[in-house]
Amino acid sequence: MSPQGVLGVAVIGTGKMGADHVRRLHHVISGARVTAVVDVDGERSKALADTLDGCTAYTEAAVALAAEDVDAVLIASPGPAHEAALLEALGRDLPILCEKPLTPDAASALRVLEAEQRLGHRRLQVGFMRRYDAEYVKLKQLLDGGELGRALMMHHRHRNPSMPSWFTTEMLISDSVVHEMDVTRWLLDQEITAVTVLKPTPSSLAPEGMSDPQLVLFETESGALVDVEIFGHCGYGYQVWAEAVCERGVVGIGDEHGPRLSADGRWGGRVTPDYIERFEDAYDRQVRAWVDATRRGEVTGPSAWDGYAAAAVCEAGVRAQREGRRVGVDLIERPDFYR
Amino acid sequence: MSPQGVLGVAVIGTGKMGADHVRRLHHVISGARVTAVVDVDGERSKALADTLDGCTAYTEAAVALAAEDVDAVLIASPGPAHEAALLEALGRDLPILCEKPLTPDAASALRVLEAEQRLGHRRLQVGFMRRYDAEYVKLKQLLDGGELGRALMMHHRHRNPSMPSWFTTEMLISDSVVHEMDVTRWLLDQEITAVTVLKPTPSSLAPEGMSDPQLVLFETESGALVDVEIFGHCGYGYQVWAEAVCERGVVGIGDEHGPRLSADGRWGGRVTPDYIERFEDAYDRQVRAWVDATRRGEVTGPSAWDGYAAAAVCEAGVRAQREGRRVGVDLIERPDFYR
Amino acid sequence: MSPQGVLGVAVIGTGKMGADHVRRLHHVISGARVTAVVDVDGERSKALADTLDGCTAYTEAAVALAAEDVDAVLIASPGPAHEAALLEALGRDLPILCEKPLTPDAASALRVLEAEQRLGHRRLQVGFMRRYDAEYVKLKQLLDGGELGRALMMHHRHRNPSMPSWFTTEMLISDSVVHEMDVTRWLLDQEITAVTVLKPTPSSLAPEGMSDPQLVLFETESGALVDVEIFGHCGYGYQVWAEAVCERGVVGIGDEHGPRLSADGRWGGRVTPDYIERFEDAYDRQVRAWVDATRRGEVTGPSAWDGYAAAAVCEAGVRAQREGRRVGVDLIERPDFYR
Amino acid sequence: MSPQGVLGVAVIGTGKMGADHVRRLHHVISGARVTAVVDVDGERSKALADTLDGCTAYTEAAVALAAEDVDAVLIASPGPAHEAALLEALGRDLPILCEKPLTPDAASALRVLEAEQRLGHRRLQVGFMRRYDAEYVKLKQLLDGGELGRALMMHHRHRNPSMPSWFTTEMLISDSVVHEMDVTRWLLDQEITAVTVLKPTPSSLAPEGMSDPQLVLFETESGALVDVEIFGHCGYGYQVWAEAVCERGVVGIGDEHGPRLSADGRWGGRVTPDYIERFEDAYDRQVRAWVDATRRGEVTGPSAWDGYAAAAVCEAGVRAQREGRRVGVDLIERPDFYR
Repeated sequence: MSPQGVLGVAVIGTGKMGADHVRRLHHVISGARVTAVVDVDGERSKALADTLDGCTAYTEAAVALAAEDVDAVLIASPGPAHEAALLEALGRDLPILCEKPLTPDAASALRVLEAEQRLGHRRLQVGFMRRYDAEYVKLKQLLDGGELGRALMMHHRHRNPSMPSWFTTEMLISDSVVHEMDVTRWLLDQEITAVTVLKPTPSSLAPEGMSDPQLVLFETESGALVDVEIFGHCGYGYQVWAEAVCERGVVGIGDEHGPRLSADGRWGGRVTPDYIERFEDAYDRQVRAWVDATRRGEVTGPSAWDGYAAAAVCEAGVRAQREGRRVGVDLIERPDFYR
Repeated sequence: MSPQGVLGVAVIGTGKMGADHVRRLHHVISGARVTAVVDVDGERSKALADTLDGCTAYTEAAVALAAEDVDAVLIASPGPAHEAALLEALGRDLPILCEKPLTPDAASALRVLEAEQRLGHRRLQVGFMRRYDAEYVKLKQLLDGGELGRALMMHHRHRNPSMPSWFTTEMLISDSVVHEMDVTRWLLDQEITAVTVLKPTPSSLAPEGMSDPQLVLFETESGALVDVEIFGHCGYGYQVWAEAVCERGVVGIGDEHGPRLSADGRWGGRVTPDYIERFEDAYDRQVRAWVDATRRGEVTGPSAWDGYAAAAVCEAGVRAQREGRRVGVDLIERPDFYR
Repeated sequence: MSPQGVLGVAVIGTGKMGADHVRRLHHVISGARVTAVVDVDGERSKALADTLDGCTAYTEAAVALAAEDVDAVLIASPGPAHEAALLEALGRDLPILCEKPLTPDAASALRVLEAEQRLGHRRLQVGFMRRYDAEYVKLKQLLDGGELGRALMMHHRHRNPSMPSWFTTEMLISDSVVHEMDVTRWLLDQEITAVTVLKPTPSSLAPEGMSDPQLVLFETESGALVDVEIFGHCGYGYQVWAEAVCERGVVGIGDEHGPRLSADGRWGGRVTPDYIERFEDAYDRQVRAWVDATRRGEVTGPSAWDGYAAAAVCEAGVRAQREGRRVGVDLIERPDFYR
Repeated sequence: MSPQGVLGVAVIGTGKMGADHVRRLHHVISGARVTAVVDVDGERSKALADTLDGCTAYTEAAVALAAEDVDAVLIASPGPAHEAALLEALGRDLPILCEKPLTPDAASALRVLEAEQRLGHRRLQVGFMRRYDAEYVKLKQLLDGGELGRALMMHHRHRNPSMPSWFTTEMLISDSVVHEMDVTRWLLDQEITAVTVLKPTPSSLAPEGMSDPQLVLFETESGALVDVEIFGHCGYGYQVWAEAVCERGVVGIGDEHGPRLSADGRWGGRVTPDYIERFEDAYDRQVRAWVDATRRGEVTGPSAWDGYAAAAVCEAGVRAQREGRRVGVDLIERPDFYR
């Protein structure tokens, strides 16, 4: 670390998400600065580095991570590139914040888990940023408080106005519902044991061939039943709701906020257009928490285990979606290291 | 009353409000039927009577009220015609439901009070129908329950999309705010002692020369302070809100109801277009309560005293509006008869 | 009908629901009066008849329906007694309002359908009162309006604070979810084709052996997917929500209404304790609509076909619940008579 | 500034607010660090400085502001101490963020205005942090957008659960309502021209001798009428609402947020306990905006003029409160410097 204890961060991947994290580390979060940006597209990383004092552009992660002024790594490259970067960073014992997914499948996630365990201490946090959203945090507190008893069911809604053209039916599970997989595991503090995917007749406004919306069902260790409406092309805005049905009460988050306008024969407000606006504060808090913990020499937040478990549930989900049946989730026994 | 105990009602005044009460008595409410309709416009009353079995049209109230099949009177003629009809009906000792205002000014209201008192028993109910609205009733129950302590302030909002062309600035007080005068007296169970009217620069969408909106302030016997926003041309719909600020909590009614729609980048619902829709159930419940009480030989609901007090507060309000100052409300001492 | 066109109604069954309908016909609704009450418990019907002018108590429906002053029949006896009463009333060509269920199973419902068809005209309305609830009616209007496109999914919540001790797991389907079966058919204007019932680990506050809550899934003719959370012992109150996910927007009803109180560190309101309070207006409107239509010689509202279809879906639902699998719904082809 | 362009900030006043700003500058906001803390209580400043790297404690502002590593000043001392610190900092041409009030009265505020104008450029921002609250910002955008037409009225609610024992009736105006004075001026983009204060009978739960709650009325240049309910001892939590009544619609902020719980016969949520939690994000955004602008060599946010205008309105408000009458606001003509 630099004399004043400012964390030097290498950001791997400088696309939309990576560039936003660079801005956040430079402009929003105290105690860290971006000393390296890495992208296979050298011109893109060079252009970004030129806007920052004391930041070097690289095309290879291995070279960047060897630099003296790199104390920690934030990985925001595409999912298939994660494993190599993670193993490199773990090999150098560097603290890591890795955007979700940890890796695209359970087998590669397991290899990462093993690499971290070989270090003998935790170094890796996965970017499930909803755990840092103010409303989810309060929901978690209410559930943990115990007054409501055990959670019996959860209902989730996850709606996007539209999806990019390259977005596939499978990605509705692995890129979108993966967030509900993680918050369900976190809120209920237990693993998901099986997944079922149900497909109504698609919206005529969804792309040809895409099955949208869908209803995804999770079963959990305690026998809770969780449903997720995932709707990629709802047209009107971005909405995320969650409701926990407990033995002694029901608690929900995600009602529409902001100014309430009465005009033209209607009352109401504006729907957030995308996840960037909806979860802006959560992204900020996540990176701040990671920087703070890293400077204290600790690892908090979602672990590699959470990344692995999400990958395994996603695999089951995609299979359930494809085969039209309930698919059990196979998990290795949880190592003590991750308890 | 007819053999089966069905109340024969004469409806005086067959304009918009009167015709609606005829429909209500005939079609909605059990235990009553319209046996006489009275209007100075004989053709209008005749046309209405022809649509009903066993109903006679009259042009003079005195003749109608003398008819054998008239057991009770509902007065829905214009305010200036009320006094004569009320004195006639009281002279015949008939049960009366009189649309608000009881009479247009305090002096004439006092004459009605005296006539009723001469009977030695109550016969007269005034049509302040908000007291029958489900939300106001629940608000009253909460305030009467006592857990919230004394009411210190009330805030009212009373908005109309627009007003007819003949509606004057004074009528904003005597025709619109009169409802807030009555519910304030009823909810707080005390008299209004002074009125002040404040006029912001009018909306450019209000008619030329009309001061709209206005803020009307009431002071009450216990020193509570009440503000009323009256807005006759808000443009977007009909809204009535009320909020009581008490020592141990704040309670409000009038949030927007009905289906909540998310579409086109917005969430929300429809604003009720007018008081007919907003208070439909209250009108029904009011007339049903009057019919029921009358058949039992009782008088419940807002009394002639309430009509007189409202007239006196209106007089003060109109003077406060005209003179731009705080005006005290003069009330005679409340007769034991009305306690 | 009596000289003044007042409908003479025989009410069969004088338990909780029947007695409430007697009160409604006598006290709330215009144009009808109760001329006969029928109950196998003769003392109960006698006691009730004694409170009403011109009402006779019977122990046998056949005798009551033969009386001169009986123009129409309201059936509120237990479900298993419905078929006999319905066939008797249809045999006499009397207008009928029959509390749900029409009959307890699809086979008996079919026999009623056949009896009505033999008359050559419709006589029978089934008491699915949610179709008369103001919020459901507005939801239906929005869906029928077409601006939102086709409904892709529906989400229902149906929660009771608790259930009587004799309430079984099967009755969660046939007595509670039957309402969602009917409103789904009505709102989407199509039949339900299959039912699946999923059971999370029950609440520890539900009675021993009862599987509560449950998630019930319907598939419809157009391929819409509908989920219903049924929770019989949620403990805190009665809540009914419905949300339709359409191609161009999402619309929901059932948010909590009434006064909003801020006190003791919390904001919010009271949850309705039971369906009687929540659907009071719907019951009133249903009976008023039936009386009005009957006096006009018409039949409107849910038909015997709706009663039969609900019975068939219930049968499938109970089997799905018992066997833990998706069960298709078998319906006869809809007769032209019921189109 | 230090080599890496990090702003060295002297924080004057290390009480509750000052200590919180130290935490914010050190821990939350990027691009700044606290190099000096100043307090007449030397032990308090010393204790705080010891927790921070490279921070020196002072007892005199003049000495601290002369230090080499001080690039900018944040003033969080009590109001009466502001003028001296402001003049000292302006004398050194240092960028300043000064907690509200600028100074306790209009005359001293004018002296600060003159000192800043002598510099020939702006250096001073006043800490009216509500202008950085996400909801107020959206409200401002809606009003500025123009679709709603001119604002005719505003309604504000400002409730605290309780006030410290040393809080006086006057401070309800100068310490609490001052926020509504500023946001009203900012939202409507015009000056307040007169103030009236109305006092209902106080709550029995307010301290003996304190007039609480009150209704404060503002008139503005365009003739808009603004009412503020200020309630210092509402008991149940901290609530801030604002509603603008415009020619073409009404828009409000401040509805209760967070998880919505249904339990124990009630629905609703938790009321924020204090302004620290309610406006946490606004404080963060304010200081971040000040640090960013300062590093760019700019001054944005509320100016010394805004501080002066608020002081003048407060003076009028306190006089109106004391004398029980409408009091006009005297402002000097706005210097071009502050346009």
